[in-house]
Amino acid sequence: MTYVIGHKNPDTDTICSAIGYAALKNTLEAGSAQAARAGDLNPETTFVLERFGLDLPEYLENAAGKDIILVDHNEAAQAVDGVTDAHILEILDHHKIGDIQTSEPIYFRAMPIGCTATIVYLCYQENGLTPEPATAGALCSAILSDTLAFRSPTCTPLDQEVAEKLAEIAGIEDVQAYAKEMFKAGSELSGKSPKEILYMDFKKFTAGSTTYGVGQVTSMDEDELAELSSTMKEYMEGSFSEHGVDMLFLLLTNILEESSELIVAGEGALDTAKKAFQPEEGDRMYLKGVVSRKKQVVPPLTDALS
Amino acid sequence: MTYVIGHKNPDTDTICSAIGYAALKNTLEAGSAQAARAGDLNPETTFVLERFGLDLPEYLENAAGKDIILVDHNEAAQAVDGVTDAHILEILDHHKIGDIQTSEPIYFRAMPIGCTATIVYLCYQENGLTPEPATAGALCSAILSDTLAFRSPTCTPLDQEVAEKLAEIAGIEDVQAYAKEMFKAGSELSGKSPKEILYMDFKKFTAGSTTYGVGQVTSMDEDELAELSSTMKEYMEGSFSEHGVDMLFLLLTNILEESSELIVAGEGALDTAKKAFQPEEGDRMYLKGVVSRKKQVVPPLTDALS
Repeated sequence: MTYVIGHKNPDTDTICSAIGYAALKNTLEAGSAQAARAGDLNPETTFVLERFGLDLPEYLENAAGKDIILVDHNEAAQAVDGVTDAHILEILDHHKIGDIQTSEPIYFRAMPIGCTATIVYLCYQENGLTPEPATAGALCSAILSDTLAFRSPTCTPLDQEVAEKLAEIAGIEDVQAYAKEMFKAGSELSGKSPKEILYMDFKKFTAGSTTYGVGQVTSMDEDELAELSSTMKEYMEGSFSEHGVDMLFLLLTNILEESSELIVAGEGALDTAKKAFQPEEGDRMYLKGVVSRKKQVVPPLTDALS
Repeated sequence: MTYVIGHKNPDTDTICSAIGYAALKNTLEAGSAQAARAGDLNPETTFVLERFGLDLPEYLENAAGKDIILVDHNEAAQAVDGVTDAHILEILDHHKIGDIQTSEPIYFRAMPIGCTATIVYLCYQENGLTPEPATAGALCSAILSDTLAFRSPTCTPLDQEVAEKLAEIAGIEDVQAYAKEMFKAGSELSGKSPKEILYMDFKKFTAGSTTYGVGQVTSMDEDELAELSSTMKEYMEGSFSEHGVDMLFLLLTNILEESSELIVAGEGALDTAKKAFQPEEGDRMYLKGVVSRKKQVVPPLTDALS
């Protein structure tokens, strides 16, 4: 049995690509694969699974000794515990090439596109197969989520083309209306502690000897984001030592305005952010046009740190 | 301009995959790519280029600052000088996942199959294109070379299927007869110094803190191999310190018998080899059924060293 699993702090792409790729593997060979997850679902992904009547992937606490396929990540720091003692069979990803090494040749497919789910759909196509409507709905949701409904600069024509095909299979009539509904479900922050908000969509990275974490909250509600800005800054400064990183960053992304506010904590974090983004002077760090952590935030932070 | 380049000490797959993939890139966008090489050609590859009237790829001394596509390798130690300061756009490979990291998402396609040229052909297919006959001949030769004409355990049904399609395009009527001719051209060792023989097909690897080199000579001539066995052992022991590795291994592979003799030099090399291969007692180390450095030699050596 092979576990198909995405990164920790799972998002919609990580969960839905695992579901979609495990379903493909099981179509090719019944009972060969199982979708898994390395953490709790965020509200957006919960909405997607409920909407399409899909089962919650199995929680895998430790992958040591197991056969696994990684989707949507290829860095050990982001992977399920025990990854270095697991047997990695395949990797499907759309991020920069990280630090996973293997002792034998494997299937590794990374593409510089908006979403892993797009690659999963290509694999269906190359095998002459079509995903089930529910699976197609999940994969389509992943693309809408990662590309902010085709607004992110990471979105390629291929992502949009695939998402539209998947929407048709899934019976989603108005893709933008569905995306809006999904984002609204995803940005329901009420009742959440600052810690829960920080970890809704959080990834760790390493640049040289520095480890840093970048969280992202996306919303379409300007007032909500303004309120978060002060609560989260206070929380991140106060709780800094708990997070096990040298620097902590949080993007508060306004989807409609296609811009983000960057909150920082940790020694040197402000200087690093200034070096990376050269923001206008002022109390708050507004990054116009910045919506993609992967493409617009991590590369300049990594460069600034090395 | 993007350089498509394989590993140092180029072999037929590294050169022909570079030629084939650069040709595909130029078909998609004229003048966009250039096949390159990181060293001198071996006699087998020279035979292939002459046979199909193909130009020698440009020699690239240093890739710093250049846009490059890596084929047939994904480890910095095997790559052209300056690779860490180059802009890697894509990687196509069939080896284990190595240590190349990027700061942005790229196209990385590795498959656990016999030959990179098979992946290059898949890229033609996915673009709805067919390689020119000369390019097809080069790609077919690469597959025959890497799979020892379908005899290596690394060979998959896909490799054989693709090689047969390519042979048809290239007008190669009898694939096995052509392979024999190519191997004969490749194993012309007369007039070569032991050093030249060691470096005909030589790769460096790192396992923990140990660096080791593995050369391979393939031949269909039993007597030639027996003679090499003593010359090369003497040479490797005498010249050991020149090679800049902690351990030195050489495989003398008899293609027809599908077995290899392993020659070792360096402190601990014999113990490592014994631990890795548990050979029968005796003066010489014969490895029955072992013909693939990548699949049958490097993984057990790496395991034995860690």
